[in-house]
Amino acid sequence: MVVRESFENSLQELQRKMMEMGELTVASLDKSFTALKNQDIELALRVIEEDNEVDDLEDEINQLAIWLIVKEQPVARDLRKIIGAIKISSNIERIADFGVNIAKSTIKIGKTNSQIDLTNLEAMKDISVNMLHKSLEAFLTEKIALAKEVGDMDDEVDQYSDDNYKHLTNYLSSHIEQTNQVAQLLFVNRYLERTADHITNIAESAAYLIKGRMYDLNT
Amino acid sequence: MVVRESFENSLQELQRKMMEMGELTVASLDKSFTALKNQDIELALRVIEEDNEVDDLEDEINQLAIWLIVKEQPVARDLRKIIGAIKISSNIERIADFGVNIAKSTIKIGKTNSQIDLTNLEAMKDISVNMLHKSLEAFLTEKIALAKEVGDMDDEVDQYSDDNYKHLTNYLSSHIEQTNQVAQLLFVNRYLERTADHITNIAESAAYLIKGRMYDLNT
Repeated sequence: MVVRESFENSLQELQRKMMEMGELTVASLDKSFTALKNQDIELALRVIEEDNEVDDLEDEINQLAIWLIVKEQPVARDLRKIIGAIKISSNIERIADFGVNIAKSTIKIGKTNSQIDLTNLEAMKDISVNMLHKSLEAFLTEKIALAKEVGDMDDEVDQYSDDNYKHLTNYLSSHIEQTNQVAQLLFVNRYLERTADHITNIAESAAYLIKGRMYDLNT
Repeated sequence: MVVRESFENSLQELQRKMMEMGELTVASLDKSFTALKNQDIELALRVIEEDNEVDDLEDEINQLAIWLIVKEQPVARDLRKIIGAIKISSNIERIADFGVNIAKSTIKIGKTNSQIDLTNLEAMKDISVNMLHKSLEAFLTEKIALAKEVGDMDDEVDQYSDDNYKHLTNYLSSHIEQTNQVAQLLFVNRYLERTADHITNIAESAAYLIKGRMYDLNT
């Protein structure tokens, strides 16, 4: 009974670290987008610096997970929880990298007089943040309905991404002097689309934990 | 002794699967680039279809690795080899995704009369393929010199990437009717730069196996 209790404590520690990674990554996306909107180079640099906290947490999660597997030899749902934590932290790490990428694009754009409307990109970012909260909650509370909602929201982000691509390349043809800025915004559009894909992977890990088999929510 | 022998066999099976993933991924990069050069939509579609073989291999490697850790409770170098296989297969899977991305860009470009010179992008692809072979060899033969060479080659790819970005955005200003094609080539340039980054991660996993501590080869 004591062994089981200590195992439960370790699992909770694993989930706590996962949630912390999630919160830092939401902050990274929010800050990098604020930097992009305000052409705030200082803030962009801070996002890049702070990314190592997320990387460190991923290492800690991997180490704790491997240690738990070796020590406790868990099976079934317990093992799926641990494997889930490894997979989810790897996806969160990649999402935080997209925050860094947006910060780097912000730096490459620098200070420009002409600012392009970022409303649609911001909508994608907001949906993604919402998706990330929902997918982690799906994993923690084991609610399959939440995981499925994430899949639907990913379709919405894909639609925005297609529209933005057309809009930005079209804008470019009449604002050729802004090539650098538009090229960077095309990258940001791509980063946000990929962000939503990785969040969908997290929802799939939640579905795997709950149902014990893999789902493809990215259809 | 029998236990040790069967453990060695399982480790070799793990490495064999890793090498197979590597070869499929080299084929994915080569084929997707040929498709891009020849505007060969059929071939691009085949690259996308074949990607699930790489994904399946990654799943097999993860399962075998976890099973080995649970069953054999390896320590030190043996454990590093298994963790290395998990990390490397995750990086190879991402590289194969870039092959898929290049194939998707090929489809988005479609058939165009004006073809842009792809020599520099092809050079990046060739260096990356070379890097991938070298990084996997570094892991298998435990030669630290090979891992360091990979780090140097990554600098070369980064230089190409910066040059290509300038060249392509500059080209765009005088060929605005080719916006879609140039935008896709900017993405391809980015995919190849990221490909080289992930191969550098593989070299870092090799260095970790050999030296027992992490190196940052991406400086």
